[in-house]
Amino acid sequence: MKLKSLREAQHSGVGDFLRGSLQLAADNALHAPAKDCAALRAVLTERAREICDIRADLAPLANLLERWQTEVNRISETELEDFRWRAAEAAMALLDASKTAVRDVAMNVARVISKGSTVLTHGPSSTIREAFSALAERGVQAIVTESRPACGGWTLAGKLARWGVSTTLITEAQIGVFVRRADCVLVGAERIMADGTIVNRVGTYLVALAAHDQGVPFYVCCETFKRHTGRVEACEFPESDPSEIGSPPAEGVTVRNVSLDSTPAWLVTGWINEKGLVPLLEG
Amino acid sequence: MKLKSLREAQHSGVGDFLRGSLQLAADNALHAPAKDCAALRAVLTERAREICDIRADLAPLANLLERWQTEVNRISETELEDFRWRAAEAAMALLDASKTAVRDVAMNVARVISKGSTVLTHGPSSTIREAFSALAERGVQAIVTESRPACGGWTLAGKLARWGVSTTLITEAQIGVFVRRADCVLVGAERIMADGTIVNRVGTYLVALAAHDQGVPFYVCCETFKRHTGRVEACEFPESDPSEIGSPPAEGVTVRNVSLDSTPAWLVTGWINEKGLVPLLEG
Repeated sequence: MKLKSLREAQHSGVGDFLRGSLQLAADNALHAPAKDCAALRAVLTERAREICDIRADLAPLANLLERWQTEVNRISETELEDFRWRAAEAAMALLDASKTAVRDVAMNVARVISKGSTVLTHGPSSTIREAFSALAERGVQAIVTESRPACGGWTLAGKLARWGVSTTLITEAQIGVFVRRADCVLVGAERIMADGTIVNRVGTYLVALAAHDQGVPFYVCCETFKRHTGRVEACEFPESDPSEIGSPPAEGVTVRNVSLDSTPAWLVTGWINEKGLVPLLEG
Repeated sequence: MKLKSLREAQHSGVGDFLRGSLQLAADNALHAPAKDCAALRAVLTERAREICDIRADLAPLANLLERWQTEVNRISETELEDFRWRAAEAAMALLDASKTAVRDVAMNVARVISKGSTVLTHGPSSTIREAFSALAERGVQAIVTESRPACGGWTLAGKLARWGVSTTLITEAQIGVFVRRADCVLVGAERIMADGTIVNRVGTYLVALAAHDQGVPFYVCCETFKRHTGRVEACEFPESDPSEIGSPPAEGVTVRNVSLDSTPAWLVTGWINEKGLVPLLEG
């Protein structure tokens, strides 16, 4: 795992990205050049900062790496190879805990969603992918948005169909037409703010508004770890490269590519996490 | 004007398409092969039916051609060339009336929108294009959705920029992020149902929901002619070719391309038509 491939991992959802960052931290622990334990500790701190800088706005990333560094700081500086191994192990333990959490969320999703339901989803999310793998045997149908410009919806739709889930692929503009044909909406989350605001792939807010207007339950599915507990932050998100969407058709046109939006808690029916289905503001 | 180019005219909005149908009717009147007036009348009726079949769901199209045929039926069957000329003239008179109505709507839009406003728009509409040409000198800024898959937003954005309107181009998914940066939303309409439901390019309903949630005024701009007065019809719309969006990524995936949606009257702030800004249900 390199910094470059970690940046690309963002396209398949923030969960994969966070786990990738732990994988990279473990790789650094094992392979970063250093003459002794103190030097390695300094290099790992520097590299962790580089990882955090990929998404400086993403508090769960900083929290996760901070948690890992706390563990690393507890390791005594004796033998270099032993230090490397124990630092890597600490990262892998956090990674395993995250994978277990995702599986638990997916199992809880399968408990909440009735057999034969039609489920609409939007935005890349490893948790949603995992949930559908658990739902595939329960005869659910999927409606998946393409999620332009990265178009992760196309990959997800192909995967679901191969698992035997009858899948409909739509443009974002058709969300309002198709949400009324769904029994519920399931989305992942990049993070949940202290006030219950969901931060997720741009367009999630529109799905939530349409689901609310049509009386369709709207569930957010993610690990408790993604919940911020601190103060409510301003929701200004970094912008992706506009050329992913296209070149301006004329001078005087600015193409914008904001990739996240925020959905207020009142539009969310419930939060499915490791514990089960819980009210968003008490999870 | 041929049937084929008329079908393509739909991409730039239903107003252009309706006016194109009158242009085609006039061309048919002048050039369709016929040995006498009675034969020509029969040919024109047949051709008008072909035009209506392009969009059998579009009542304003049937109404317009019916109105024209009523005029044609009043023409006495004397000299063939004279008959041709009068039938064509009847179509052109309706076309001129439609152009005048669009200009009047655009002027009324320019009266309603304050100088320096930021206006968000979605979907192709000749009325909106005309309105922006009237607004260009008033220092407005535009936020335009790309309107995938036909992507008429790219053409409109280029046109606005060349008129000196500072223009932002966004994907449909970003509507919720950008609507709060707009002072108002302006959309055209393919038609307005008897109960005030707006039928327009798919995604309009999402724009209206977001505008309502953010407290941004949402205006529909179109000629009174597009208002249905009859019973409320079911809103099942014809579907466009899914290959415009892309090929299914796997067997078991169905790509859908519904190109219209309906927006209920309660989400609409007002209707700007030839008379001015009027409440939607009293226009």
